[in-house]
Amino acid sequence: MAIKVHGSPVSPAAKRVLLCLAEKQLDYEFVLVDLATGQHKKEPFLSLNPFGQVPGFEDGDLKLFESRAITRYIAHAYADKGTPLISEDPKKMAIIGVWLEVESQRFDAAGQKLSFEILVKPMKGLTTDDAAVEQLQGQLAAVLDVYEARLGKSKYLGGDEFSLADLHHVPIIANLLKTKVKAVFDARPAVSAWAAALLARPAWLKINAA
Amino acid sequence: MAIKVHGSPVSPAAKRVLLCLAEKQLDYEFVLVDLATGQHKKEPFLSLNPFGQVPGFEDGDLKLFESRAITRYIAHAYADKGTPLISEDPKKMAIIGVWLEVESQRFDAAGQKLSFEILVKPMKGLTTDDAAVEQLQGQLAAVLDVYEARLGKSKYLGGDEFSLADLHHVPIIANLLKTKVKAVFDARPAVSAWAAALLARPAWLKINAA
Repeated sequence: MAIKVHGSPVSPAAKRVLLCLAEKQLDYEFVLVDLATGQHKKEPFLSLNPFGQVPGFEDGDLKLFESRAITRYIAHAYADKGTPLISEDPKKMAIIGVWLEVESQRFDAAGQKLSFEILVKPMKGLTTDDAAVEQLQGQLAAVLDVYEARLGKSKYLGGDEFSLADLHHVPIIANLLKTKVKAVFDARPAVSAWAAALLARPAWLKINAA
Repeated sequence: MAIKVHGSPVSPAAKRVLLCLAEKQLDYEFVLVDLATGQHKKEPFLSLNPFGQVPGFEDGDLKLFESRAITRYIAHAYADKGTPLISEDPKKMAIIGVWLEVESQRFDAAGQKLSFEILVKPMKGLTTDDAAVEQLQGQLAAVLDVYEARLGKSKYLGGDEFSLADLHHVPIIANLLKTKVKAVFDARPAVSAWAAALLARPAWLKINAA
C-alpha cells in the first residue's frame, strides 16, 4: 500500500490525518507508534519527524510530518477523490485558508490545552490545573463567539461547503464535548449545530469504529 | 489601488505580509491602524478581522485576515509575479507545507513570545519575565537544533530555493537578532547563515527603508 500513517489511535493529530484519508476514501496502512514506550522519541521514527511527535506520513517516497501539512497535501494531491476539501478558486481558497489559520492559531491554542488538562492529565495520573482550565475556557469562549457570528452567515467556516478548515477541528471538538467544556459549545446554537454536523460525518464514524 | 494592507509598522505579522508583497513586486496601499488608541479593537477594523489583530487585507472585494493565510493567497494568486514562493509540484509543495507548519506551530510559539518578553514589554513599561525568557530560549534552541540539521541538507527549509516557509520567519528573526537571543542563532552555523541570507533579501531591506 502506498500510503502509511505512523501514529497512535489516541492522538488528535493522528486522527486529523485519518479523518482526511477517510473523507478522501483512500486506503492506507496504519503503523502503530507506541507512545508509552517512547517510540516517537527514537529512531526510526525520528527520521520521519525530527520533532518526535505523531503522526508521521508516507506516500510512496514522500515523507511528511505535521498533521495540517499532511492533510493539505492529501487534499491537493487527491483533489479528485472523495469529499472536496479545498477550492480551485483562489478567492474561495483564501477564505478557507483564513479559517485554517484561525483553527491552528486560535482554536487549537485553547482547545488542545483544555483537552490535555481535562482528559490526558488524569489518564497519566497528573492533576488537572483548574485555574488553567478556567482561563482556557474563557479563551475558547471568545474564539467561539467569533465562530457563532461566522456560522450565522455561512454553513461552514470556509463557506457553504464542508472543507479542510472544518475538518481540522474535529478530533479536538470530539474530545472537548466529552467534558464540561461542552457547556461552552451548548451556549452557542450555531456552533453547537456545526459541531454536531462534524461529529456525524460518516468518515468520522468510520475511523472511530475501526 | 487594488491591494490594501491594514496594519502597524511595528507588527511582525503585518511585516510578514508587506515582505510577501515586496517579494512579489506588488503595489499596495498601507492603511495605518493605530494600536495605541485601540483602533484594532473597534469598527471598522473588526469587520475586517473579528479577532481584532493586525494585519487586515483587501484585494478588490476580497477581505482576509491572519498573516499566513494572506501570504498564501498572495503566493498563489500572484504566482507569476516576482519571487516564486510556492511550488506547482504537489510533492515539493508538501515539503514547503511541512516547514510552513513548523514555523507556525514550533518556531513562532517560542520566537514570538521571546520577542514580546524582551522587546515589546520594555517598550510598554512592563517587566520582562526572566524565567519565561530562559524557558523559551531552551524551547527555541531545541527547534533550531532541528533547523541546523535540515539546513545542513538543503539551502532553505522547504528545499534548495527560498520559499514562503522561510519568508514567514523573517520578522521574528529580525527582532530576535537585536537581542541576547542572537547567541542561540550564532551557536548554529547553518542557521546563522540562513538567517543572514533572509535578512539580506532586497525585499526585506526595501520594506524597512520605507
